[in-house]
Amino acid sequence: MNVREESLKKHAEWKGKIETVCRVPADSAQALSLAYTPGVAEPCMAIHNNIEKSFDLTRRWNTVPVITDGTAVLGLGDIGPEAGMPVMEGKCALFKAYGGVDAYPLCIKSKDTEEIIKTIKLLSGSFGGINLEDISAPRCFEIETRLKAELDIPVFHDDQHGTAIVMTAALINALKLAGKKKEDINLVINGAGAAGIAIAKFLLDFGVKNITVCDLKGVICEGEPWLNAPQSELAKLTNRKRLKGTLADAMKGADVVIGVSGPHCITKDMVGAMAEKAILFTCANPVPEIEPQDAKVAGAFIVGTGSSANPNQINNVLVFPGLFRGALDVRANTVNREMMVAASYGIANCVSPEQLSVDYILPYAFDKTAHESVAKAVAEAAVKSGVAKLC
Amino acid sequence: MNVREESLKKHAEWKGKIETVCRVPADSAQALSLAYTPGVAEPCMAIHNNIEKSFDLTRRWNTVPVITDGTAVLGLGDIGPEAGMPVMEGKCALFKAYGGVDAYPLCIKSKDTEEIIKTIKLLSGSFGGINLEDISAPRCFEIETRLKAELDIPVFHDDQHGTAIVMTAALINALKLAGKKKEDINLVINGAGAAGIAIAKFLLDFGVKNITVCDLKGVICEGEPWLNAPQSELAKLTNRKRLKGTLADAMKGADVVIGVSGPHCITKDMVGAMAEKAILFTCANPVPEIEPQDAKVAGAFIVGTGSSANPNQINNVLVFPGLFRGALDVRANTVNREMMVAASYGIANCVSPEQLSVDYILPYAFDKTAHESVAKAVAEAAVKSGVAKLC
Repeated sequence: MNVREESLKKHAEWKGKIETVCRVPADSAQALSLAYTPGVAEPCMAIHNNIEKSFDLTRRWNTVPVITDGTAVLGLGDIGPEAGMPVMEGKCALFKAYGGVDAYPLCIKSKDTEEIIKTIKLLSGSFGGINLEDISAPRCFEIETRLKAELDIPVFHDDQHGTAIVMTAALINALKLAGKKKEDINLVINGAGAAGIAIAKFLLDFGVKNITVCDLKGVICEGEPWLNAPQSELAKLTNRKRLKGTLADAMKGADVVIGVSGPHCITKDMVGAMAEKAILFTCANPVPEIEPQDAKVAGAFIVGTGSSANPNQINNVLVFPGLFRGALDVRANTVNREMMVAASYGIANCVSPEQLSVDYILPYAFDKTAHESVAKAVAEAAVKSGVAKLC
Repeated sequence: MNVREESLKKHAEWKGKIETVCRVPADSAQALSLAYTPGVAEPCMAIHNNIEKSFDLTRRWNTVPVITDGTAVLGLGDIGPEAGMPVMEGKCALFKAYGGVDAYPLCIKSKDTEEIIKTIKLLSGSFGGINLEDISAPRCFEIETRLKAELDIPVFHDDQHGTAIVMTAALINALKLAGKKKEDINLVINGAGAAGIAIAKFLLDFGVKNITVCDLKGVICEGEPWLNAPQSELAKLTNRKRLKGTLADAMKGADVVIGVSGPHCITKDMVGAMAEKAILFTCANPVPEIEPQDAKVAGAFIVGTGSSANPNQINNVLVFPGLFRGALDVRANTVNREMMVAASYGIANCVSPEQLSVDYILPYAFDKTAHESVAKAVAEAAVKSGVAKLC
């Protein structure tokens, strides 16, 4: 039985990867009068008098919904909100296992940007933060931007920034092994959806100077008539040599290729045409842009994928549990750039110089110390950058 | 320290009465590949091909949100959605403790009927059923009616029907002790909000013939100019003698008074004017319409309240955990009248003839066998009335 068949069987046995439990006694009249009526009137009125108390007197302080519209689930695309739920539930399970965060899945039956924003805003008083998930580009950009501006709790679109953060962590450590500097490398990103655009912007901020982004239609270049609005904006920041052509053209001589696109769109020949000590992060899910063994045969120096089945899993599961743990711990009112860069270093620094090798550039996703490292780094960055309500 | 002060202290210690836990292994690459990527793609596609599978492959089958807009919380009124959360969380804790249901609280920052309906509909694919809570009348009637019509999962407004069901259970047993028949009694309901109107309609269906409902402005009588739409409808079904006047007028000679109104609006004199073997269910929360000891001094035969601090707690906590357990177990597509009447008898029948006394007309809220009895009765009624997808 392959992993997908076994997973289906397990899901049918599990009947849910998370559940809610009761944390208080409920076995006597006295217990009920404290947890429920009549006693509960008092915490209600305390919050009525000061809404901030909802973080002290209910579970709000630790609660983060994983919200999707099901339009960009894994590499499967627009499969609908209910069909996205196994992924959302999986995230919730890992939120708890690795970050101690109480998460639950919410799927929204709408693809309308305004409806999605409105729905989330109306519910926001229930939550300590909001994790957006698997919402397709370009709608996801406006949804996240608007929610960040209009809410005073952390809002995080995992597919954009979780991916950018972990990719940057992987790049930090891979460049150490390749002996290259971020300022000098030629870096290609394949996939100009939510993740690709977020990675490009994050890496530019981070100090990578030469970035070329490709989409299904080819290299993103200023003036191409097929660019959508976010891609046009990106075209002004990337590909300064104004290269036109295909992914194969862009990959010639590249030091690093980051794939956040679809299955098997990179060939051995394309890898062979890259620079010495080529680095490939081929993270399409569930099937990568090129199988790792094929990339290695074609001469790649370091290969990472999104899957736990191969070495160097570059998956945002290394990010979101610790990032929200850190943000919630200091009651950050947003997730800013400083907190995200801190998360990248929090991950990268978990691999010691002695451990670092071409097959071990990132800590394992199930390594709890990595998540603790992210949480600590994020909380410190939130306090330092002045967005934490608690210190 | 009184119970309200102690409850506030406990809530500050608890920091949440529920939490989410992870039900699956997450401690190895293999475990991650089954619960998360790449394996999770398979259950996603199974649901994409058949949405019903979301009940088998995720926690949807057992998940019920407790949703409020915070406009009618306990007897505290419109205290806002965040301030309602301690009550919602309490319900969620009891949902799990007594019914094994995974519930979580959602507060909606809107008082607009259409917005609330829309929000809940957009989220409904995440849930196995929906529990509406503490939404003020008359909006709650349309919200529930519309959601019941437009969704194919159980929708239940606890303040209306939970209260009606438990009140009917209490009445069944109290009438046995008083030696009176439901067809013959004069029954007065004080409070013509969500609960009062629902109780009146439920009891009329149940076979009580003479019902008079009062509101703050007095007795509800056909033609009174101050009636709102649901009250006008009710005026055609109740008070057939067309009595006008105050609550005190209505209570003269009454066999049963049900209070779902506000604190201390019934006096000893008013109780003294009732019929022999007077029954009072004074369920205003957190302070009843008359203190039980005062009602007894004034001659009441049986007194019940909403609080666990007094004998005969008549609280819908006896209803909602078992009702949803039963509905979810057979995947009922609604909550119909048959299931609700079954729940009333499920509760009443838990008190044996030997146990039945003026201070023990209902099982204790923390008695698990009572909730099991409700669940069994509701599931059987759902199957018998043809609304169950599983048998």
